Amino acid sequence: MLKETKKHLPKATAKRLPVYLRYLKMLQDSNVLRIKSKDFAQITQIPSATIRRDFSYLGELGRSGYGYDVPYLIEVFSNLLDTEEEKRIALIGFGNLGKALANNNFRRNANLNIVSVFDNNPAMINQEIDGFIVHDLAEFKQIVANEGISVAISTVPSKYSQEVVDIIVEAGITAILSFAPDRVKVPKGVTVQYIDLTTELQTLIYFDQEYKKVL
Amino acid sequence: MLKETKKHLPKATAKRLPVYLRYLKMLQDSNVLRIKSKDFAQITQIPSATIRRDFSYLGELGRSGYGYDVPYLIEVFSNLLDTEEEKRIALIGFGNLGKALANNNFRRNANLNIVSVFDNNPAMINQEIDGFIVHDLAEFKQIVANEGISVAISTVPSKYSQEVVDIIVEAGITAILSFAPDRVKVPKGVTVQYIDLTTELQTLIYFDQEYKKVL
Repeated sequence: MLKETKKHLPKATAKRLPVYLRYLKMLQDSNVLRIKSKDFAQITQIPSATIRRDFSYLGELGRSGYGYDVPYLIEVFSNLLDTEEEKRIALIGFGNLGKALANNNFRRNANLNIVSVFDNNPAMINQEIDGFIVHDLAEFKQIVANEGISVAISTVPSKYSQEVVDIIVEAGITAILSFAPDRVKVPKGVTVQYIDLTTELQTLIYFDQEYKKVL
Repeated sequence: MLKETKKHLPKATAKRLPVYLRYLKMLQDSNVLRIKSKDFAQITQIPSATIRRDFSYLGELGRSGYGYDVPYLIEVFSNLLDTEEEKRIALIGFGNLGKALANNNFRRNANLNIVSVFDNNPAMINQEIDGFIVHDLAEFKQIVANEGISVAISTVPSKYSQEVVDIIVEAGITAILSFAPDRVKVPKGVTVQYIDLTTELQTLIYFDQEYKKVL
């Protein structure tokens, strides 16, 4: 039944799943094994109505007045997000942002691992920097195959974005995280997630100003 | 009339406004002065039904079959996002991620300016690094007042996040962008926008896998 409902999960709900999962694990670490949506709303700062609606897409996860079973939710959400399996990641662009990502290396999730880094700067290629050998993009396809890489992160500037995404797609990768906000063209079956820091900041400023108007 | 509708703008719509604005400016740069929602959907990769719904919240922006007037949309959206006014930004945490943000400095938007950077690393304090004097957090309130800073970005690790946010709030700043995903407590009237890179990546992998199941 879960499998059936998964297909219809709204994108906004899916985006909240990793957030829910993190807080549920924190609760479990503190030996909280049952939680009401109202209390979970307090912790996550997501409205309880949103939480109940999100959870309802996933089937019978809790009962009114009783709350949700924390270990069970963790099991369901972990399964949905498939964090059980290691994901080997290629990082393209080893400037400050690339280094920040590589050094952090998603340490909150042991299964997300940046295993190879690439740059087009000749001064960097084949050098060991911050513990990573920087590879030439010309080697991308070969290294992806050898290393069993299935995810790519691009931190290259917008003007190189399409070119780099083409190389990523050519290597058979279907999951791409891009820090260049310009939309790139990819074939069907390839998912690109964009992170646009300017947009995030503009949105923040917008909400801040809206808030001041209603005060 | 616009003012009235603004208050009810859904958060998801507001988040798309900066994206719309960027593409509208690109269109204007290419002398495209009128666009249909179907064509705009092609460019932005946002479904045309979503675009029409989003635009409908903002009043009468276009007519069926005629399309939208690009310069007029730019005016309306710029006004909404208030990009006319300079926003002076403080950056806290000058590691790789902080440096990436400071060097990029939101160059796509001339009105967003990181003007002061802060770190608690004694080796950095009062040094000029990448063109920025790194300040001690102890000076935060004073510098915020002197520099007319109204926005803060925190790139400090989760464990220091609340402590740093308290300092930011104490200085009178109400708009905070945090790269530590743990939710912090702030007084009413303070807006925190979280950017959680691990969640973005997990969501990408989730959608990539969902897509493969339906293929």
